[in-house]
Amino acid sequence: MIFVADNLQITDPVIDQSVKQEDPAPIQALVRRCEAAGAEAIDINSGPMTKTPEKMGFMVAAVQAVTDLPVLIDTANPLAMTEGLRASRKTSIINGFSLEPVKLAEILPLAGEFDVEIIGYLLDSHSHVPPDAAGRLEVAMAVFEAAGSAGVPPSRLIIDPVVAPAAWTDGVVQNREILSVIRQLPDLIGEPVRTIGGLSNLTTGGAPLSKRRLLERSYLPMLAAAGLSFALMNVLHEETMAVARACRALTSGGIFAWEAL
Amino acid sequence: MIFVADNLQITDPVIDQSVKQEDPAPIQALVRRCEAAGAEAIDINSGPMTKTPEKMGFMVAAVQAVTDLPVLIDTANPLAMTEGLRASRKTSIINGFSLEPVKLAEILPLAGEFDVEIIGYLLDSHSHVPPDAAGRLEVAMAVFEAAGSAGVPPSRLIIDPVVAPAAWTDGVVQNREILSVIRQLPDLIGEPVRTIGGLSNLTTGGAPLSKRRLLERSYLPMLAAAGLSFALMNVLHEETMAVARACRALTSGGIFAWEAL
Repeated sequence: MIFVADNLQITDPVIDQSVKQEDPAPIQALVRRCEAAGAEAIDINSGPMTKTPEKMGFMVAAVQAVTDLPVLIDTANPLAMTEGLRASRKTSIINGFSLEPVKLAEILPLAGEFDVEIIGYLLDSHSHVPPDAAGRLEVAMAVFEAAGSAGVPPSRLIIDPVVAPAAWTDGVVQNREILSVIRQLPDLIGEPVRTIGGLSNLTTGGAPLSKRRLLERSYLPMLAAAGLSFALMNVLHEETMAVARACRALTSGGIFAWEAL
Repeated sequence: MIFVADNLQITDPVIDQSVKQEDPAPIQALVRRCEAAGAEAIDINSGPMTKTPEKMGFMVAAVQAVTDLPVLIDTANPLAMTEGLRASRKTSIINGFSLEPVKLAEILPLAGEFDVEIIGYLLDSHSHVPPDAAGRLEVAMAVFEAAGSAGVPPSRLIIDPVVAPAAWTDGVVQNREILSVIRQLPDLIGEPVRTIGGLSNLTTGGAPLSKRRLLERSYLPMLAAAGLSFALMNVLHEETMAVARACRALTSGGIFAWEAL
């Protein structure tokens, strides 16, 4: 399991200001903190950026000036995605596409064009969550087919089953189904399937902070045991990162060592 | 997932002294603390008690005088087991038997005799851990068959897949297989199968306390997601109990509520 920082978000006022003023320092300070905390990749969430797609280029360049970690370029805006990919001088991953027609038409082709890996969400053509586990597997098949048609082989695709907020009426049920989907995907596709899960999705919605983090670090081992490849998470939550490291030790093929915790 | 306290152990000098002097107060104080902390059953681990099997009767009576929680009578000594079952006035569970001939001959029949549920360990006829996941499933079949022959139907049997110390050379691999065994047992047996896992087994062997607890609360959600029915654990570890409650919320069929955490 690889630890991906979800800390770099335009919804953070410090980052927003940094982008508006084209001042890379606050972004870079955050990235350095994330890497020091154990991040192994950095998600760059720029928001929609409909009016200033070139700012994604600024963000990617700012990040890559201080780290060699892979970056996930995280935007629903094809123009911003293109700017980010153009600016990238190191490993970048498209985050991401779904079966929504605009995503298929304008985001998915960028994977081939820029020769990068791409994340596919298990969301239907209206970007809705499938109704149940069987629906998720159907959507997964369609995502692999769409990727294949765009010249993206399964080995270049990373599936995001879209963790549900626990507070949704059926959020807990959905998140149990997600565990089962992660386990079943390799058999369904007939080869190894990499997956990514956004841990903070789980706790969207009002709740005491301590309980949100407790829920995060209780669900993370479940995802890890199911075989999750990338944990997208707040890497500055120390206790969550400690659990993440323990999960890696418990799910690795290697010899266990207390020192790894 | 039901929380079973593993706190009442003869290896605790206070408990040992309490039993030797037949003074129930220290035992009862501990049981009250466990129940207040959220224990839903109490494991009574008396050790071998080869010379004083009647002390198990004392322990069971002492516990049941202050709680209505089910007790797990945890001894390898058939005489002590019998004394414990005789003394019990409330729900008791035999913990437990394996395919070892002496266990089959002298412990297993007590389930029918006292009409109680019984725990069956996934250990072979020499009380060794099976070599791999397939071996575990073979042993599980044999345990169900042995129980059936003794008049114990699957619904009265609880399987303990025997969590391995992580520090064993293949401990981590064994514990991953255990997750898979817990998931596969219902299909193998063709009906629901209840399981119990001893969390402290995981961290037997020298390691810093903080790391032991971190490992415990990282493995517990994996067991919960696999479908574990009974978590045998130190219920006085507050953070582990908080995670256990979060696991219950995440694996329950009901509506999620922050208040449950």
